Amino acid sequence: MKNIIALAQVNLICADIEHNKNKIIDFVKKAKEKNASLVIFPELTLTPQPLGDILLRYPLVCEKCQKALFEIQEFCQDISALVGFIEENKENGKFYNSIALIQNKKIIKTAKKTVISKITPNDEHKYFDKFSENFENRIFEIQGINYGLFINEEELNNKALIEQIKTKADYVICCSTSCTRYKKDKIKHKFLSDFSKNNNLKLIYVNQVGGYDEFIYDGTSRIYNNQGEIEKISKAFEEDCFIVDLNSKETIAIADYIKSIEIKENFSLDYDDDLERTYNSLVLAIKDYFNKNGFKQAVLGLSGGLDSTICAVLLTDALGCENVLGISMPSKLTSSESKNDALELAQNLGINFLEVPIKDAQDSIGEKFNKTFNEIEKSWTNKSKISYTQDNIQARFRSMVLWGVANEFNSTLSIATSDKSELYMGYATINGDMSGGYAPISDVVKTKLFALAKWMNKNREQKNAIPESIILKPPGAELALDPKTGKTLLAEDALMPYEFLDEVIWRIENFNQSVDDMMKIEFLYEKKNNITKATKTQWLEKFFRRTNTALYKWCIAPVGAIVDTYSINKAEYKQPISSNINYK
Amino acid sequence: MKNIIALAQVNLICADIEHNKNKIIDFVKKAKEKNASLVIFPELTLTPQPLGDILLRYPLVCEKCQKALFEIQEFCQDISALVGFIEENKENGKFYNSIALIQNKKIIKTAKKTVISKITPNDEHKYFDKFSENFENRIFEIQGINYGLFINEEELNNKALIEQIKTKADYVICCSTSCTRYKKDKIKHKFLSDFSKNNNLKLIYVNQVGGYDEFIYDGTSRIYNNQGEIEKISKAFEEDCFIVDLNSKETIAIADYIKSIEIKENFSLDYDDDLERTYNSLVLAIKDYFNKNGFKQAVLGLSGGLDSTICAVLLTDALGCENVLGISMPSKLTSSESKNDALELAQNLGINFLEVPIKDAQDSIGEKFNKTFNEIEKSWTNKSKISYTQDNIQARFRSMVLWGVANEFNSTLSIATSDKSELYMGYATINGDMSGGYAPISDVVKTKLFALAKWMNKNREQKNAIPESIILKPPGAELALDPKTGKTLLAEDALMPYEFLDEVIWRIENFNQSVDDMMKIEFLYEKKNNITKATKTQWLEKFFRRTNTALYKWCIAPVGAIVDTYSINKAEYKQPISSNINYK
Repeated sequence: MKNIIALAQVNLICADIEHNKNKIIDFVKKAKEKNASLVIFPELTLTPQPLGDILLRYPLVCEKCQKALFEIQEFCQDISALVGFIEENKENGKFYNSIALIQNKKIIKTAKKTVISKITPNDEHKYFDKFSENFENRIFEIQGINYGLFINEEELNNKALIEQIKTKADYVICCSTSCTRYKKDKIKHKFLSDFSKNNNLKLIYVNQVGGYDEFIYDGTSRIYNNQGEIEKISKAFEEDCFIVDLNSKETIAIADYIKSIEIKENFSLDYDDDLERTYNSLVLAIKDYFNKNGFKQAVLGLSGGLDSTICAVLLTDALGCENVLGISMPSKLTSSESKNDALELAQNLGINFLEVPIKDAQDSIGEKFNKTFNEIEKSWTNKSKISYTQDNIQARFRSMVLWGVANEFNSTLSIATSDKSELYMGYATINGDMSGGYAPISDVVKTKLFALAKWMNKNREQKNAIPESIILKPPGAELALDPKTGKTLLAEDALMPYEFLDEVIWRIENFNQSVDDMMKIEFLYEKKNNITKATKTQWLEKFFRRTNTALYKWCIAPVGAIVDTYSINKAEYKQPISSNINYK
Repeated sequence: MKNIIALAQVNLICADIEHNKNKIIDFVKKAKEKNASLVIFPELTLTPQPLGDILLRYPLVCEKCQKALFEIQEFCQDISALVGFIEENKENGKFYNSIALIQNKKIIKTAKKTVISKITPNDEHKYFDKFSENFENRIFEIQGINYGLFINEEELNNKALIEQIKTKADYVICCSTSCTRYKKDKIKHKFLSDFSKNNNLKLIYVNQVGGYDEFIYDGTSRIYNNQGEIEKISKAFEEDCFIVDLNSKETIAIADYIKSIEIKENFSLDYDDDLERTYNSLVLAIKDYFNKNGFKQAVLGLSGGLDSTICAVLLTDALGCENVLGISMPSKLTSSESKNDALELAQNLGINFLEVPIKDAQDSIGEKFNKTFNEIEKSWTNKSKISYTQDNIQARFRSMVLWGVANEFNSTLSIATSDKSELYMGYATINGDMSGGYAPISDVVKTKLFALAKWMNKNREQKNAIPESIILKPPGAELALDPKTGKTLLAEDALMPYEFLDEVIWRIENFNQSVDDMMKIEFLYEKKNNITKATKTQWLEKFFRRTNTALYKWCIAPVGAIVDTYSINKAEYKQPISSNINYK
């Protein structure tokens, strides 16, 4: 006998109750068509997290949730539904993260979440009250099966609830929302697997999918058997009304990044086990940021360098090549190789392409600026010995062109191409390359971008879209000449080797290591290259000095997806600008 | 007989243990010179809040606190000291917000905070553990006086602790840090006053002073008698080693903004009771942001309009006129009145002044852009009917000049002049007027800026520095012509009357009102002007529509001081960009 349920892996819009309600009704209908007896939605379906301060400032969202539930219940004849919503206790004004059980067109009971997370971005403690559970509301029977219900994280932290539910349920349901990040995915799978095995429970885990500003949800709703093995799993990075016959023994392919529980304990440069997930996350993040905010087209500068290249590929895959415009804006310092690389890339991708030389503008602005500076020097005597003004004019004029296009064409966003390594170093121009309406790779370090480029060339439908010369040449902004060589300055000369730099970031983000800690450890770079202690100290000090002064740039960086385990994205990491840490 | 104590109202730097330690030692010495038996520092003296995620990422800050305390104790011969620090429990890895009592060169005991705040920006719950108090550590005797100790907010929330301390203490000390904001200052005074009176307690309240990025601490450390009256009060907005003889009956002048407990319950346009505090807060915020981050000079565009005018005055008072450079950058649309107003203001203030006309650059860039757009139109057919590109070129080119100056001269910051009303409306150009290293008035609405201008003309040492024509003329960015009148477009025509706009902001921030709520209430503007319901609805809908699309601009706005009761500053207010609220 079949016993069919539906895992409703939906892509929602924060605070848009009308949109989410319609989506829920649509999925209820789909599930009914497939003869499901139960359709399960993720936590806070009617207005997904992160909620920000919406509840504090616009509490009427709550009332609308209640109204929407009444509309939804009308569609729940001959099917039960679990729907997440914000529940208000009118008497004490408190809000709860709740799940409604709807049966026979009626809300039968609601379960209020008993564990409240302090973790950013959801910051549930700021908005929701913790409920001391009436466990009765967590058990229900449908077609002879007893289900127990957890709301995201409870199965981690509420032992009493686990004990109660364990004894009575054939299946345990977890209505979750859990965003995808490198370590987190592995830890989550291990935890859920152990939980099923150790408690001898069958676990139904339902997750949302989609990009929500910086945060990306991968879906991958799944069912564990009581041995801790995944028996069924829905699509990754896509909406899915995932229909499951609980009695069927069919097996389903599982994405590699979920299967591999192991977390790499040493810094390495291959990033092998994370490239597919990273690529899919970034594409979905772009797609949803554009969709949910009414944008359709993207314009970006194509320098022929790695950062703008990766951004162009991601944008193409998220928006379609016809919706991407790459503009090459060569200055006096742009090499013909860079120009050719940019053009070749655009041709390979089939995106719109334009060359707008900026030499003349650069000259005339430079001249105007010099006249201005000479005037100012009459009163201010502290002119910099090393000036980045001319470098920055190029980056800023380019950004002005991009914002101009975004202003002039409807539904068009300009793109910031800064990467994570360079943001850490403040190696990005304000109102220049770090400016834009969206920053696709602001949480991806440079060495990972190299690995990603190779992965894309191999794994995208269109092979080798990225010209090899882009992957082979050392990164450089082509904004200034190196006085020593007379050639354009390379990023690694201005900073330090990226392999070293990225390991420092990895050590800070994963182990909170200080300069002293890192001096005691042999870096991967040291194993491959002979460097003195003095050089290592110098690089580390440079790193922390630059990071400390880069803080104010992070604060004005545009929205970008978080994919790493930790990030400096201001949506989750906070450090006062007017602070002064001694990192030794 | 005298009984002298010192309230050490210090200005600190977050995470700079060395700086703060030296400051503490300096104040201990000052207090000893004045024969104080006890010197009291504010909460978390060794590394003040907001801490951000420093403790999570650089836990060694904690160890350094411990070392610094050992150095400080050497200076505490013949004087007792209460010093705030982060205490680590090495066994469980938990952190506490603690106060050390140092006597005879030894740390006698430490008190761990028992109430942990969830409120932004401190977000103590993320970093600190809540301690179940050993009340013994809260009572100590010095020169025959029994003191009881509260750590910020405990006196609000820990009834058991209050009961314990009440019975045993002659004086109750509160080591606090509490930033200044309109309503908060009044509520705080009322609370402390009632607390003293109702518990029949004498209360010593010590606060820090200074600007910490967005947050401003006003100091005003004070002593309440057991009738709830302020008997002594230290300086406002300045460091102060405030020496008090507990037995003296001398009275001290109290700043108006602290005395007046009353909070205005209706929207009004005079802002009378808040202008002095606002002015002092903004000046201190600029001063400290510059000082603490190694900046000395500011460059800003002077348009002859209200926003840049107020910024120029504040910068002059914070940094000195010799450190401020105002640049007038007239375009084709700039009136001669505006140019004259800018010049007159600069002359009155004595700041450096320069005129850099941008007509030619505007023309040549405009031409280049039009050529580019024509090219793009070959593939993209969605050119905007209404274009802001030419308007924005002016604002962006001006910002480019300012950032150029900031790049070219050491320790120089460029200034963003956007105000709060216009940020709410998204009426600010990215990489234009809203770009800069610091945004002095980003939490001040336009009608308050008008009131502030008049207040400055009357109350600054130099009277009437702001030309009257600047205060009298209606605001307008002079970026475009009004097709109806042929004159430059006024802001109120593009938006709605500022008196109306600012009341909407006030209603949202203070009462979370929706469109429906506001339709039921008569606005101040309606009392003075005859407007139809349809106009009101139209303005309200425009307001919420614009606010919703302005969200992404708030996220990339530079640091600016928070002075209002509530703000849209991203340091405290969060709303996902990809959200969609129906405000009805």
